[in-house]
Amino acid sequence: MIRFGLVGLGRIGAIHARNIDAHPRAVLAAVSDPDAARAARVAEKTGCRASGLEELLSDDTIDAVVIASPTVHHAGQAIAAARAGKAVLCEKPLSLDLDSAKACAAAVAACGTPFMIALNKRFDPTVVDLAARLRRGAIGRVELISLIGKDPEPPPDGFIPTSGGLFRDMMIHDIDLALFLAGEPPVEIWATGAVHVSDAFTRANDFDTAAVIMKTRSGVIMTQTLSRRTTFGFDQRIEVHGSEGLLRTGNHPVGHVEQWGRAGIVGPTFEHSFLERYAASYAAELDAFVTCLEEKRPPMLNAAHAVAIQAIADAITDAARSGAPGRVRFET
Amino acid sequence: MIRFGLVGLGRIGAIHARNIDAHPRAVLAAVSDPDAARAARVAEKTGCRASGLEELLSDDTIDAVVIASPTVHHAGQAIAAARAGKAVLCEKPLSLDLDSAKACAAAVAACGTPFMIALNKRFDPTVVDLAARLRRGAIGRVELISLIGKDPEPPPDGFIPTSGGLFRDMMIHDIDLALFLAGEPPVEIWATGAVHVSDAFTRANDFDTAAVIMKTRSGVIMTQTLSRRTTFGFDQRIEVHGSEGLLRTGNHPVGHVEQWGRAGIVGPTFEHSFLERYAASYAAELDAFVTCLEEKRPPMLNAAHAVAIQAIADAITDAARSGAPGRVRFET
Amino acid sequence: MIRFGLVGLGRIGAIHARNIDAHPRAVLAAVSDPDAARAARVAEKTGCRASGLEELLSDDTIDAVVIASPTVHHAGQAIAAARAGKAVLCEKPLSLDLDSAKACAAAVAACGTPFMIALNKRFDPTVVDLAARLRRGAIGRVELISLIGKDPEPPPDGFIPTSGGLFRDMMIHDIDLALFLAGEPPVEIWATGAVHVSDAFTRANDFDTAAVIMKTRSGVIMTQTLSRRTTFGFDQRIEVHGSEGLLRTGNHPVGHVEQWGRAGIVGPTFEHSFLERYAASYAAELDAFVTCLEEKRPPMLNAAHAVAIQAIADAITDAARSGAPGRVRFET
Amino acid sequence: MIRFGLVGLGRIGAIHARNIDAHPRAVLAAVSDPDAARAARVAEKTGCRASGLEELLSDDTIDAVVIASPTVHHAGQAIAAARAGKAVLCEKPLSLDLDSAKACAAAVAACGTPFMIALNKRFDPTVVDLAARLRRGAIGRVELISLIGKDPEPPPDGFIPTSGGLFRDMMIHDIDLALFLAGEPPVEIWATGAVHVSDAFTRANDFDTAAVIMKTRSGVIMTQTLSRRTTFGFDQRIEVHGSEGLLRTGNHPVGHVEQWGRAGIVGPTFEHSFLERYAASYAAELDAFVTCLEEKRPPMLNAAHAVAIQAIADAITDAARSGAPGRVRFET
Repeated sequence: MIRFGLVGLGRIGAIHARNIDAHPRAVLAAVSDPDAARAARVAEKTGCRASGLEELLSDDTIDAVVIASPTVHHAGQAIAAARAGKAVLCEKPLSLDLDSAKACAAAVAACGTPFMIALNKRFDPTVVDLAARLRRGAIGRVELISLIGKDPEPPPDGFIPTSGGLFRDMMIHDIDLALFLAGEPPVEIWATGAVHVSDAFTRANDFDTAAVIMKTRSGVIMTQTLSRRTTFGFDQRIEVHGSEGLLRTGNHPVGHVEQWGRAGIVGPTFEHSFLERYAASYAAELDAFVTCLEEKRPPMLNAAHAVAIQAIADAITDAARSGAPGRVRFET
Repeated sequence: MIRFGLVGLGRIGAIHARNIDAHPRAVLAAVSDPDAARAARVAEKTGCRASGLEELLSDDTIDAVVIASPTVHHAGQAIAAARAGKAVLCEKPLSLDLDSAKACAAAVAACGTPFMIALNKRFDPTVVDLAARLRRGAIGRVELISLIGKDPEPPPDGFIPTSGGLFRDMMIHDIDLALFLAGEPPVEIWATGAVHVSDAFTRANDFDTAAVIMKTRSGVIMTQTLSRRTTFGFDQRIEVHGSEGLLRTGNHPVGHVEQWGRAGIVGPTFEHSFLERYAASYAAELDAFVTCLEEKRPPMLNAAHAVAIQAIADAITDAARSGAPGRVRFET
Repeated sequence: MIRFGLVGLGRIGAIHARNIDAHPRAVLAAVSDPDAARAARVAEKTGCRASGLEELLSDDTIDAVVIASPTVHHAGQAIAAARAGKAVLCEKPLSLDLDSAKACAAAVAACGTPFMIALNKRFDPTVVDLAARLRRGAIGRVELISLIGKDPEPPPDGFIPTSGGLFRDMMIHDIDLALFLAGEPPVEIWATGAVHVSDAFTRANDFDTAAVIMKTRSGVIMTQTLSRRTTFGFDQRIEVHGSEGLLRTGNHPVGHVEQWGRAGIVGPTFEHSFLERYAASYAAELDAFVTCLEEKRPPMLNAAHAVAIQAIADAITDAARSGAPGRVRFET
Repeated sequence: MIRFGLVGLGRIGAIHARNIDAHPRAVLAAVSDPDAARAARVAEKTGCRASGLEELLSDDTIDAVVIASPTVHHAGQAIAAARAGKAVLCEKPLSLDLDSAKACAAAVAACGTPFMIALNKRFDPTVVDLAARLRRGAIGRVELISLIGKDPEPPPDGFIPTSGGLFRDMMIHDIDLALFLAGEPPVEIWATGAVHVSDAFTRANDFDTAAVIMKTRSGVIMTQTLSRRTTFGFDQRIEVHGSEGLLRTGNHPVGHVEQWGRAGIVGPTFEHSFLERYAASYAAELDAFVTCLEEKRPPMLNAAHAVAIQAIADAITDAARSGAPGRVRFET
């Protein structure tokens, strides 16, 4: 049994609480949140202890810490947890500032404890299925990867200036996914953005609509289109074109009823929220982390990887703002 | 080149005119219709001769006659054409009255000229594809065949009392199709009907909605549901369940544009009319007839076959009216 | 909180154990199974008590009993539980023998305690969605209902003679579903069957492939096709044709990856087992039962209903064996 | 009736011959091809005259000329035909060399006769349907357009060095399409390419796989992915993301049969060749040209438009080779 402490009980923290509680080889030992009442509620429901952060980190019965606090606290808490000898599963990003992220990665690495950055999309059963087919050569050599990543609706205006921007906040998952599917990192990038959804993005020097091309050393071309608003639900599609065929995954419909009538053939809309769409991914991500700890294997999604994909997100942001192509040196 | 005379220039006659004219190894030599102006128009357009029926039948340069006149004339014209030594392609049914149909079949057979009853659905490219897969064992042994046959809207009230009823008028094509796919005729049938669409069907002692089960000697079970009205277009689906899998064919959509929005995922409706849906079937049917004549092979869809499937339609009509199961002796 | 005892811990009992344990307003207090080791394992996992049946029934802290034992015990245990004052959720059927089922229903009704027969398909989210659309008139008046119910593979040979036959064992769920969707019971039925899958069905005087037509008083026509083997997974489809359109539900695919290549466009197969396909239905069924108890409303799926649909299954069995149409008097 | 001369009887010329012959308001008066035997065959089949080019151009009974000769002859023949007072429908491109294309456009414009460059994709019924929905606001304001254009297999090695390259040869149609759907031209472009299919592309300083982003003045972002080989058929998809939803069009399947079995759910592959996929587009293009002539409206796809989209193709070629972003000035 791996005994967990959980730091931060917002939307994503709540998911981790449920998943740790339900995992057959994990125990949720303690939770910590600045909102003591919230921590108490979660503690009661899961039968664990509400705790201060320091107390949680100094509890020797706790093996691993999940950090799901607001981004601004990630780096500091990750370092503190690693220094306390805990294995760490930390929500992305380490920090919105790349230098801080690098410093955090270095500090964490120096501790020698297991560290994993939380990029749940890789663990989505649909992605796992698709990646397994690629690995076994179902479509030959990978040549073109096309990702679509669109949110059903924009975030609250207040969040936008603090988000890090479209590429760091939203695309970061897809950058990781593209690398995972391509099997190698990009070396060149081109990007452009526009504002169609809300002036709040203009005011934040951000985009709400964008397209990106990345190319790897061996010539795999990856494209991504992004939007902050679809109207019809969460739009998360992957298409991989290979030398022997094509793999693609569609959106997940809500329900299975089709209606035929004068208005046409009407199917269900798509799942609206990442909480529904990626419920299984978060659980599988936790399971992968637990398994690494059990088998004493270092997680592949380590702090250096976290820094590397963040550097790509930064380069894309620069490229989209300047219009000039970007170059990336990927160091994991 | 096979030289054709065409008798009857209604909706279906017009299809035959176009198809004969377009066929690379057929020539439309003469057309005949009680409406002389209509005959003249078609003759001008296709560059053939408008002609009286007798004149057409006595024209020695004409090899084959297509009979597309109203049902009441089929038997008489078929016999006359066969006696004039013409090969005959006759629209179904030979006659609404089974005894007359039998007499016609006997008379035609006595002439020894090629005769084919027009059951175009068998020649539909989708059906041909599906049947070819069955023949090469794609789903093993056939066990269950389910047909759906529904018109977009009911015929004019005036036509209903003269139609022969739902099973003789509409299902006759699917009876032929079921036999074709099963590879053997039914020996037992069960049927029931209802009136949901229009009182005109009640007044004609007819149904507008029905379900039928047929079973062959070797135990292949065939089901059919029928309706005279869908609202969403022509509903023509086939599903064959075999020992190794299932084949199915859907309706043909009109266009290829899909719209995603708050209202859901909306695809195109289906083709509305049999004229669109079976355009290719009529052309392929004609080609099969031409090929039989060229190769001097007797058509499989001969007059005895026409009688046999009509006998099944009669038995289904009786079964649906009485509620009692029916038995069929199939003699081709 | 409703406190539950659970009798029988086979495949379906295990589902109930999990669902009661997970239900926010239910507690699993005790489990009983002839296999004491199995009972102990489940008790440990769910934190409840393993118990003998009598002990369980005489425990005053237990409000409700779920009966998931082999069919032969259903009637006796249902009566005993009702007489002990427990609310009862009993797996179908009450008894394979209709007279015993009637006697059980009468005995249970005499106790006046809440009783619900477990017919989980009605609670399937897809069915609930479809039924809600029917109720709000999405396709006008219901005219034709077509159900497909096929298992991926036949049951073990040893089970077949004890199953009650294809219609009582497999179709019973769809009979309930057809009534639910039609909003009224059938009055006439036609059925036929065949053996294509295994001689074991012949030896048991049973069928493995069948088609059924049922018609209600107001003329709604319902068809059902059944098979004990598909090769491609669980085949559970519903189609409702109404005066204003059509609703249909397909099978649930396993995964979302589509592969395009020389072999064609290949999508995922379908869920293989009812355990996957109806996982949500069992949970929703339990929730409906709990809600009835909380709100002190008698369950609609009461013992009389259990008897009524069993009478229909018996009538279908007779009709399929004799070939003669059946009549049903439905008394709920 | 518009009387046509047709110059060039290769693959595309043959399509034009058939379409002119079948058009109700057009007559094919003469055909010209360096291969006299081929010209004679077509002339016989369509009942027109085989003719030398000069003779054809000096025939006063001919109103319009379709130029479907090899690219190297387009400009010269287009000018000659325009100077002979003929309306001209000329296959793309005017010339592979942009300066020659501009000179040709100027010469043709000076003649004042109607001129249309043949870009048939705009006339594809699927595109027409999609564009009509955009125009009537079905998805609000257009924000993102994603095109996929892939050939089933690469052209013969010998053709590659003469093709003008991936963007001029293959993407030119999609450039026109993107402009048509966006309603305005691009001002900025980014592009990259790779060679995955055949070394013949490397030897020709060409790409076989590529991705392009274009952005219009108002911020509509257009992406395109291209490949010279799919294995599964012609891959031609369009997706338009708007403020109120999304429109998309899939590939056209060959047939309608779906097979369910242990291997999964297998649908038909896609149409393999542009001859099948765009058969209707060529006919609709001709009809649009005929209608312009009848109504004495100048065609929108005039010579200046031909030059403009060619300039974009040139800019994309430069951008893909250099990696630097391109700028476009669009002058129609």
